[in-house]
Amino acid sequence: MANSSIGTLYGVGVGPGDPELITLKGYRLLQSVPVIAWPAPLEGDSMARKIAAPHLSGIQFEIQIRMPMVADRFPAEDIYDQAAANIGAHLSDGNDVAVLCEGDPFVYGSFMYLFARMSERFPVEVVPGVSSLTAGAAVLGMPLASRNDVLTVLPAPLPEEELERRLADTDAAVIVKVGRHLQKLDRVLDRLGLKDSARYVEYATMKNQTIRPFAEAARGEAPYFSLVLVHRRGQAWR
Amino acid sequence: MANSSIGTLYGVGVGPGDPELITLKGYRLLQSVPVIAWPAPLEGDSMARKIAAPHLSGIQFEIQIRMPMVADRFPAEDIYDQAAANIGAHLSDGNDVAVLCEGDPFVYGSFMYLFARMSERFPVEVVPGVSSLTAGAAVLGMPLASRNDVLTVLPAPLPEEELERRLADTDAAVIVKVGRHLQKLDRVLDRLGLKDSARYVEYATMKNQTIRPFAEAARGEAPYFSLVLVHRRGQAWR
Repeated sequence: MANSSIGTLYGVGVGPGDPELITLKGYRLLQSVPVIAWPAPLEGDSMARKIAAPHLSGIQFEIQIRMPMVADRFPAEDIYDQAAANIGAHLSDGNDVAVLCEGDPFVYGSFMYLFARMSERFPVEVVPGVSSLTAGAAVLGMPLASRNDVLTVLPAPLPEEELERRLADTDAAVIVKVGRHLQKLDRVLDRLGLKDSARYVEYATMKNQTIRPFAEAARGEAPYFSLVLVHRRGQAWR
Repeated sequence: MANSSIGTLYGVGVGPGDPELITLKGYRLLQSVPVIAWPAPLEGDSMARKIAAPHLSGIQFEIQIRMPMVADRFPAEDIYDQAAANIGAHLSDGNDVAVLCEGDPFVYGSFMYLFARMSERFPVEVVPGVSSLTAGAAVLGMPLASRNDVLTVLPAPLPEEELERRLADTDAAVIVKVGRHLQKLDRVLDRLGLKDSARYVEYATMKNQTIRPFAEAARGEAPYFSLVLVHRRGQAWR
């Protein structure tokens, strides 16, 4: 709170896209903190801020964390250093700061780079959110894991051989960050005999959500915010 | 809505424990549906209903789905058949029904057994929730996965050799359903040199939440609602 000596840094998961999939706690914080920060590409909209927009008070100070969206590269250290310094100044002034995080802050999110820089110097609280993993499963109507299933989460940029090896050795898998790796996945799933049962979704729970059988999706292009769900036993939960 | 010809079945993730970690959508549905259903042991409280309790209108019809909590056994088919019939009768009367699900409905939840029985006969919508996986990571202050990490979710009842093989071959792991398998995990993590970096949490985000280094937790007992987080590279996100 603003009248204490030092502010708290909140990493707030804003959920996968539908603004109604933020938590009550996330909503309360977005309504009450005096400062918010959000990641964005160098030009254009921030996905996290877009999801949170209906919940913001409109009178908050906003810190933009803009960075080049170069795939598969370690994030620019100096950009996070600068963001941590900006945020830290507000915290030192006694103001709470909420960092908006797509999905959940600790599932392939950029919040961890701020967390690493600030958690030893400031009070930090991570507010978990609905991740795209479970949101994708929900809109596809495909349970992620049941009973003693092993569930593997695989980033699509992994090498083709590694993807194949790991997909051959799990009960269920979510492949994230599909983007330009769609053709590679197509070859791997085809070789494993999983192509016909795999399901594809892009922009899960958003207005432009699109659901397709994987085989159909593989004939087109995929954005970064897309994922593929695979169950090795097919619809074994039935 | 009650005035349409047929109701919708909602599988509502109520989140990991803290009632404030339900989504706005879940909250809206719990306030508005005329019928709720929830799983529970043969005797005693339902965890899902306990989490949702502050949000219920108090005038809803409630369907209890009580079953023996026998670990690692296929759920009693006839109990789910009966529950599906009870819920189906309300839907056919034009009433919406919300099934309360701990965490997320499709992450090791029992909702999928109702989903399998009912999704072809009734409109079904799955409302994703914050799962204990991300809630556990949040309260432990341990990112689950970053960059191109492989994340593996492992049920603790798996055989000791399989746990060891899979833990040796992943960047990050969440071990769920720890319960009476704590000593087995202790041996496996010790052999892999992961014991000192593994973290343990039980009842994440609940009032009785307890966090311990794994090595300390292993000297005691673990409830079913506990999990262990492991990063093979230690705190590599720093």
